[in-house]
Amino acid sequence: MKKGNLLYEGKAKRIYETDEPNVIWIEYKDDTTAFNGEKKEVIKGKSRLNNEISSLLFAKMQEAGIQNHFIQKRSETEQLVKKTDIIPLEVVVRNIAAGSLAKRLGMEEGIPLKKTIVEYYYKNDDLGDPLINQDHIELLELARPEQLEEIRETALKVNGILTGHFDQCSVRLVDFKLEFGLDEHGAILLADEISPDTCRLWDKETNQKFDKDVFRRNLGSLTEAYEEILRRLKGETNHV
Amino acid sequence: MKKGNLLYEGKAKRIYETDEPNVIWIEYKDDTTAFNGEKKEVIKGKSRLNNEISSLLFAKMQEAGIQNHFIQKRSETEQLVKKTDIIPLEVVVRNIAAGSLAKRLGMEEGIPLKKTIVEYYYKNDDLGDPLINQDHIELLELARPEQLEEIRETALKVNGILTGHFDQCSVRLVDFKLEFGLDEHGAILLADEISPDTCRLWDKETNQKFDKDVFRRNLGSLTEAYEEILRRLKGETNHV
Ligand SMILES: Nc1ncnc2c1ncn2[C@@H]1O[C@H](COP(=O)(O)OP(=O)(O)O)[C@@H](O)[C@H]1O
Ligand SMILES: Nc1ncnc2c1ncn2[C@@H]1O[C@H](COP(=O)(O)OP(=O)(O)O)[C@@H](O)[C@H]1O
Ligand SMILES: [Mg+2]
Ligand SMILES: [Mg+2]
Repeated sequence: MKKGNLLYEGKAKRIYETDEPNVIWIEYKDDTTAFNGEKKEVIKGKSRLNNEISSLLFAKMQEAGIQNHFIQKRSETEQLVKKTDIIPLEVVVRNIAAGSLAKRLGMEEGIPLKKTIVEYYYKNDDLGDPLINQDHIELLELARPEQLEEIRETALKVNGILTGHFDQCSVRLVDFKLEFGLDEHGAILLADEISPDTCRLWDKETNQKFDKDVFRRNLGSLTEAYEEILRRLKGETNHV
Repeated sequence: MKKGNLLYEGKAKRIYETDEPNVIWIEYKDDTTAFNGEKKEVIKGKSRLNNEISSLLFAKMQEAGIQNHFIQKRSETEQLVKKTDIIPLEVVVRNIAAGSLAKRLGMEEGIPLKKTIVEYYYKNDDLGDPLINQDHIELLELARPEQLEEIRETALKVNGILTGHFDQCSVRLVDFKLEFGLDEHGAILLADEISPDTCRLWDKETNQKFDKDVFRRNLGSLTEAYEEILRRLKGETNHV
């Protein structure tokens, strides 16, 4: 497999062609952004950590039978995935009140939600990734109702799988963001990344944050936090 | 029927008890507010116009078999309605892109929507009436799923009825906001008001605005605009 032309550079990753038309090469970047790009920094090591954590978690998705884009880790900061037509939706699943949900509904951060919440945001930097509902999604023709239903079901299933794995590591899965894409047959694949950039992860005992809020809120070393998640996922520490 | 104690004073109306426990007395105010109370003015005559227009439109709801709170107009600025337990949702129905939808989705104002849009906002001034979805509504226990389904169906039916009436007056119903409440038996009644304060109404030929945007955007005389709507609804002018 050969790395070809750069197809797209996003905020956190670069996407390259390969000699296989349905395979792309993802290169994680050390660039760290928050608040729709307003806060920016280069944090050395983030690319390696997210690439490794996301590879590990997508392998777990594979085991659990979740259709997804992951093929293999290629290097410290690179992986191969199936090329998809990304559906421009950020699908957010929430177990505990935090971030924009706490703000929107006037809830205190850290309160467990009586009901798992699924939210759809229109992935559009110019519009600031606004919250949208099913009618908006149909109007914009982002997904058909039955596709959205499948996305929602899959997101809830992923929530169950991830919650279980993180729980074994003594980590609380507060919330996370998923992206989905369509493969060449029109099948819906879980795509993009699953990492501390896209999940809120709190220590079960102390509520210490091991995710991008460390950067957003200046809570210390981001790489130390992500290292801790990686160590725990690999079962290298006894943390319970 | 006797007017009793003031129960609640809102931004646009005062609500009084009556000697009937299930009946309240609504008094419209001339107070005009926008942007969650940031812009304020007293516009003499608005109370009379909204009371008359809302009474007239609720009578049409009654004729069309929409369960609603309206009993009768009592004076120029007052009406009697069934007391309900208001569900703190602003149910917005949209036929044409305008206002916050145009902003949220990056659409031009005035574009007819390929699909009627229903949106739910959490009626909470402190939180700025945020857009919410069905999961949030369940979480906050604002309405049960089957109640929300009934609310949605009714809102779409109201849209059909109002669109037809306004069309006969050469007015385009761009969008509108409804509120619903539960009566003493738990039945869902259409409540609050239907007026140029709560609807966007544009002349079919010229797109001239006959609604609260005249106040929000300083487009001229609000009362002249509302008078025009009232005249047309009463069939007093030949406007086609
Ligand atoms: N399997 C895939 N096929 C095609 N595009 C993908 C795939 N997985 C992720 N992407 C896209 O790669 C782009 C780069 O990722 P990222 O740097 O996170 O971008 P962004 O700044 O848009 O969040 C994103 O647009 C993402 O949706
Ligand atoms: N049938 C009803 N029973 C009880 N309350 C009602 C009824 N119809 C409207 N209301 C409520 O009357 C209050 C006063 O109206 P308004 O001045 O428009 O208030 P607001 O500033 O909250 O919009 C609102 O809270 C509205 O929900
Ligand atoms: Mg991204
Ligand atoms: Mg009101």
